[in-house]
Amino acid sequence: MEFSTDPTTLEWCERVQGFLDDHIRPAEKVLEEQYASAADPFDHEPPIKAELKEKARAAGLWNLFLPDEEFGAGLTNLQYAPLAEITGHSIDLAPETFNCSPPDAGNMELLAQYGTEAQQQEWLRPLLDGSIRSCFAMTEPDVASSDPNNLRTRIRRDGDDYVINGHKWWTTGICRPMTKLIIVMGLTDPDAPPGKQHSMVLVPRDAPGIEITRSLPVFGFPHHAYGGHGEVRFHDVRVPVENVLGVEGGGFAIAQARLGPGRIHHCMRLLGHAERAVELMCRRAHERATFGTPLAEQGVVQEWIADARMDIEQARLLVMKTAWLMDTMGNKGARVEISTIKVVVPRITARIVDRAIQVFGGAGVSNDLPLANYYVEARYLQIGDGPDEVHKRAVARRELRKYAG
Amino acid sequence: MEFSTDPTTLEWCERVQGFLDDHIRPAEKVLEEQYASAADPFDHEPPIKAELKEKARAAGLWNLFLPDEEFGAGLTNLQYAPLAEITGHSIDLAPETFNCSPPDAGNMELLAQYGTEAQQQEWLRPLLDGSIRSCFAMTEPDVASSDPNNLRTRIRRDGDDYVINGHKWWTTGICRPMTKLIIVMGLTDPDAPPGKQHSMVLVPRDAPGIEITRSLPVFGFPHHAYGGHGEVRFHDVRVPVENVLGVEGGGFAIAQARLGPGRIHHCMRLLGHAERAVELMCRRAHERATFGTPLAEQGVVQEWIADARMDIEQARLLVMKTAWLMDTMGNKGARVEISTIKVVVPRITARIVDRAIQVFGGAGVSNDLPLANYYVEARYLQIGDGPDEVHKRAVARRELRKYAG
Amino acid sequence: MEFSTDPTTLEWCERVQGFLDDHIRPAEKVLEEQYASAADPFDHEPPIKAELKEKARAAGLWNLFLPDEEFGAGLTNLQYAPLAEITGHSIDLAPETFNCSPPDAGNMELLAQYGTEAQQQEWLRPLLDGSIRSCFAMTEPDVASSDPNNLRTRIRRDGDDYVINGHKWWTTGICRPMTKLIIVMGLTDPDAPPGKQHSMVLVPRDAPGIEITRSLPVFGFPHHAYGGHGEVRFHDVRVPVENVLGVEGGGFAIAQARLGPGRIHHCMRLLGHAERAVELMCRRAHERATFGTPLAEQGVVQEWIADARMDIEQARLLVMKTAWLMDTMGNKGARVEISTIKVVVPRITARIVDRAIQVFGGAGVSNDLPLANYYVEARYLQIGDGPDEVHKRAVARRELRKYAG
Amino acid sequence: MEFSTDPTTLEWCERVQGFLDDHIRPAEKVLEEQYASAADPFDHEPPIKAELKEKARAAGLWNLFLPDEEFGAGLTNLQYAPLAEITGHSIDLAPETFNCSPPDAGNMELLAQYGTEAQQQEWLRPLLDGSIRSCFAMTEPDVASSDPNNLRTRIRRDGDDYVINGHKWWTTGICRPMTKLIIVMGLTDPDAPPGKQHSMVLVPRDAPGIEITRSLPVFGFPHHAYGGHGEVRFHDVRVPVENVLGVEGGGFAIAQARLGPGRIHHCMRLLGHAERAVELMCRRAHERATFGTPLAEQGVVQEWIADARMDIEQARLLVMKTAWLMDTMGNKGARVEISTIKVVVPRITARIVDRAIQVFGGAGVSNDLPLANYYVEARYLQIGDGPDEVHKRAVARRELRKYAG
Repeated sequence: MEFSTDPTTLEWCERVQGFLDDHIRPAEKVLEEQYASAADPFDHEPPIKAELKEKARAAGLWNLFLPDEEFGAGLTNLQYAPLAEITGHSIDLAPETFNCSPPDAGNMELLAQYGTEAQQQEWLRPLLDGSIRSCFAMTEPDVASSDPNNLRTRIRRDGDDYVINGHKWWTTGICRPMTKLIIVMGLTDPDAPPGKQHSMVLVPRDAPGIEITRSLPVFGFPHHAYGGHGEVRFHDVRVPVENVLGVEGGGFAIAQARLGPGRIHHCMRLLGHAERAVELMCRRAHERATFGTPLAEQGVVQEWIADARMDIEQARLLVMKTAWLMDTMGNKGARVEISTIKVVVPRITARIVDRAIQVFGGAGVSNDLPLANYYVEARYLQIGDGPDEVHKRAVARRELRKYAG
Repeated sequence: MEFSTDPTTLEWCERVQGFLDDHIRPAEKVLEEQYASAADPFDHEPPIKAELKEKARAAGLWNLFLPDEEFGAGLTNLQYAPLAEITGHSIDLAPETFNCSPPDAGNMELLAQYGTEAQQQEWLRPLLDGSIRSCFAMTEPDVASSDPNNLRTRIRRDGDDYVINGHKWWTTGICRPMTKLIIVMGLTDPDAPPGKQHSMVLVPRDAPGIEITRSLPVFGFPHHAYGGHGEVRFHDVRVPVENVLGVEGGGFAIAQARLGPGRIHHCMRLLGHAERAVELMCRRAHERATFGTPLAEQGVVQEWIADARMDIEQARLLVMKTAWLMDTMGNKGARVEISTIKVVVPRITARIVDRAIQVFGGAGVSNDLPLANYYVEARYLQIGDGPDEVHKRAVARRELRKYAG
Repeated sequence: MEFSTDPTTLEWCERVQGFLDDHIRPAEKVLEEQYASAADPFDHEPPIKAELKEKARAAGLWNLFLPDEEFGAGLTNLQYAPLAEITGHSIDLAPETFNCSPPDAGNMELLAQYGTEAQQQEWLRPLLDGSIRSCFAMTEPDVASSDPNNLRTRIRRDGDDYVINGHKWWTTGICRPMTKLIIVMGLTDPDAPPGKQHSMVLVPRDAPGIEITRSLPVFGFPHHAYGGHGEVRFHDVRVPVENVLGVEGGGFAIAQARLGPGRIHHCMRLLGHAERAVELMCRRAHERATFGTPLAEQGVVQEWIADARMDIEQARLLVMKTAWLMDTMGNKGARVEISTIKVVVPRITARIVDRAIQVFGGAGVSNDLPLANYYVEARYLQIGDGPDEVHKRAVARRELRKYAG
Repeated sequence: MEFSTDPTTLEWCERVQGFLDDHIRPAEKVLEEQYASAADPFDHEPPIKAELKEKARAAGLWNLFLPDEEFGAGLTNLQYAPLAEITGHSIDLAPETFNCSPPDAGNMELLAQYGTEAQQQEWLRPLLDGSIRSCFAMTEPDVASSDPNNLRTRIRRDGDDYVINGHKWWTTGICRPMTKLIIVMGLTDPDAPPGKQHSMVLVPRDAPGIEITRSLPVFGFPHHAYGGHGEVRFHDVRVPVENVLGVEGGGFAIAQARLGPGRIHHCMRLLGHAERAVELMCRRAHERATFGTPLAEQGVVQEWIADARMDIEQARLLVMKTAWLMDTMGNKGARVEISTIKVVVPRITARIVDRAIQVFGGAGVSNDLPLANYYVEARYLQIGDGPDEVHKRAVARRELRKYAG
């Protein structure tokens, strides 16, 4: 459990931070303008994204998230943590610039781990190259999707094909042109025991029968840069049986495997939001005075800043411990710790950002600062990838088992 | 301090609720579509609004907020409270339909109280008729505007004119075509003692030199239905000196007078948000099950519902007491109580709505339900019309004075 | 729902407050010394108590709590509320001085309502006179006593007698010499339907077979002035069947009836604690400075004071509404509101007192101030008379029923 | 920053835990009885304490806290942390049994670091042997003692003597017979610059002129086992000038040095309270049912358990990081981190213990369980050794400095 940052990671940090400062920050306004001037922002890939990705790739800052040395940078989770945190400062641009953004990162991990060679050739290679993007169709509006056993989208075998019928939403990324692949989780065998009923299949986004009805906003934000959060209906969508990911009936197990890294990456980036919020709050506290006293000298603001620092320090250590556990015990061995940070980090980030907003007043709730966006991100993650209540239940049950009977 | 609803008010409540159920609720989707299909939603007045207003006026549900019997319905604040609460259920439509929406309601009160007959003829009459709308330019980006003494927009006398130069933002409503009047608060005499330096002047929205640079979103919501939250620059804008509202130097006093009713109306409507959130949360709790148990039977959800009910009951009683104080002691006599509800009601509403969102999961943060919108409204009101910290300070100082010396 | 204090009540308030200031406050130290110098403080009745009671009775300030005009002052719950609040300032002395202290007040109400004439002659008269005291043996260590159906103490009929065997604790008041009566709740018919299995019987405290094993402290407080919180075992304790209170099997219903007034009286007194804590906190804030600034001018302390005032105002209005409901709809009609205040008032009192303690530092946690005592009282009442979780469940279930099916 | 427990420490842990289970736990009741049967518990040294200490010393479990290899066990702060946490399970006995209890531990550190050889011979040796005990007279009732510059107790030079006059309280340990030494902090030179005005002197507890007026309880607890919290007056108490600790004017610097380890040791022990509270809460949750469902399966209780585990994990990592900083950067280098844990750990411990109390109901607030005692310990430490507000201010100011100018 060595938590000091090693020299390799320190060097990576400097490079990522440098790239962020030099190239990404100045591009944020450009991105905004390119979306604003698009006829349909969802049907648009802003050129600035491609330019930045090219630069990042040339600088060797590419696919950092993948522990696999063949496909990625070969960093451990513990090494990747501070890098992901830095990308959290510029949420709409930085993760994608380094080809480390959800849901693609998670999808690439799945394809690297479970994909056949043909699947890797067809989908993983272009994803690693950044030439296409992908999405993950899991959540359904009609059932409590936090338990994947409830999912009802039907994937029925018909000869050498699967035929897919169902209704999904919160399929993030599906609404942008570059997205070519949908990983669909659905019910292949309703009679199998729980945990074996579902499978994942690879579905080309342009397959006949796919109807994207709309993109869901989050607290008013359309999330163009994410490619939206699509609501999708599958009407007799047909793919060959070779498109199953891993084995038939293996969907539940793969979903579990996928969520571990996905969740910790979210937490790492949220810490970046929180740090940036503290910085903004402190700078504002120095500049603005009320009733004749700078905010920086007012007890209530000092208390918010102190609470923020205390919360971040603790949460980051727990994220690091979880990363270390994943590195040494595997994702499964760190399952409950992942649940823990999944609850803790969004909670403290939302609180810290909320107070930073308060320090800024009207500017805080507008889009002049990234704060409202950060808040929504943190709030959403108290629901996405399993709501807090489900994760707390997992933590409590492990604790209770220690003292059972 | 008689808090039971009197028969007159009960009858009003039934009529307002009936109108809401019969006409406004069904129109919510229509409004959304009319904005969605507009080329520029800010430069657009959706026809459904005019239709509803006509119906409401025909039904005698018009200008309910105005205690003045000549201009309005002649209801006390205590009588108006439950009506305003009902309008809070449908935030984008109901208040305007009854011609009771901010900032017009507050502006009409000012004009009724301080306007000359000519001013009333020119501006108050059409506002009461609903044929034009208005806005209020107070907050400035460069100063802590919670203390109006800080405002820097300059209103300089030049012969028989005032010449206005300055920079405002959060001028709600300015971005819609029907808006014709801006009440501008600015500095007329920097050398006068604090509290006498500022004045309010009536400025036609089409006066030369007014530049609306943009509308500020709140979180991601553009707030088309409100006419946006404009950022405005005044470049040598010229109006005759007769356009002063009340007396020169009286701006501070008028601002204080205006904020009392404005704040309590916000609180009343927020209680409507909170009640509606509880209803939605309960209905969902009956319909949705996780881990084999309906949410309605799960302790955590029950705790959220109980907390919500306990918070609302208390807050509503305090709003009623404050309304009663305003009715009997005047707005000034209820000043600290107004500060109190201004802190309490947004706080509990935000918490209740946040939990309702959690019960709904993904649907909660989207626009399929009014919850995200309610949340943003409640959160914004912890900043708007004076941030919580300023109001808490006022409450504390009165308390401390009891034991001073 | 008229909440203004009527002239009669205002006059009572002045008299009770005057008596408290003139006689009770100065006696607090005396009481402490009389207990400190007793060989066994539990086996001791400090003379100051009798002196004060005599004075209070002579002043007509006696049995104020009893709505019954024959036995008590004939005040409504709403009228009694501010009087009870005043007695909350001096928790160890004031309630008993006016013969309004728990558990005697509740026991007298039961005897007045359910007692036979013989029972009233034997027990109610001396209790109303203040010549004896009583206790109430309900809670059992071995079962979740918040649901009275769980209680196991056996009251078995044997000829013309009841024979009692069982184990109780938190029998408040049993450890002092003046206590002569125990009202015991126990199981008379295990085969009856729930709600009809238990009965209450009147048991002389000196009946053979009663073993008081100890008094339980609360945090570190022995609570001598309350007559302790006894743990009691009943070994074949025998009383004639005429000693049943009301009817056999009626224990559950009587318990429900008893708890309403008992709970609201606790809440009223707690508001007195909270008000006194605010006063102390404010006075200290004026006197003490840190880092060169008086606490009264520091934002964090101001926030605590403002929060306290906002919490108290809301909670008191809810207590008044509940009292009014009890007066107009009966205790049963106010059942859920009673649950509500039972949760709200201890919660806010504990928080307010906790912050007052923080303002005082070391003095706050000591016995030099009543704050630690107040805190413990408020904390205990989150458990006593039904833990918060049970009451919140009741509130939630009523809310959910509105939207069921 | 290697946080895994090394083999040496693991072995120490097993030995300390074994001793606790085998010898200390069974002695807890004995201690209670020996105090209960003492004529004056403050003037009493229960024999069980000496017996345990003898055993612990024989087992080599002695003076573990002292990093100094000559005087103590030579463990780093990081190594000592888990040992101190174990002693937190049995707060009245374990720390003293291993001769690691406050305020003696801190006093021994001071004497080891600043004492002359003569002072070490006279006081440190017997303290290390456990044959005497000591106390630390710092806090004064009349000033905000969180800033030592405010302290007014006068230490005036008179020839070869110091003459001490002043008024102290919260002098923990002074009320027990074994206590022979008082370290007194007082003002030696009012004209020196701040930080140089105060000195510490060693004062025999039986010196003429020392008047111990009483022991202060904490939330009703007399704290006999700690030797009480004495209020002391010094009337012309005279000691030779050789009794100064370190240099004259060095009191402030020594006080700062003393507080670092003292504070982290408190935090380590509090984590032991918190862990024990979770264990108790879980065991109870398995045993007790309400409304037909075991508490262990109820969502609210699960949430409390999950929150507790999440809080402890984070806080412990932060304590470890702070210990590691102290080991590598010195106490001064870890100053702000020490402030951080000093706020965080008491806060989470109080919350966790409070919820454990709620799970137990009446038993929780009594003395049948250590919970009420733990709570009071945690609550007290939000005030003792500097109130939270002072520490949060330190954390905020460091944060703000990063962005100043």
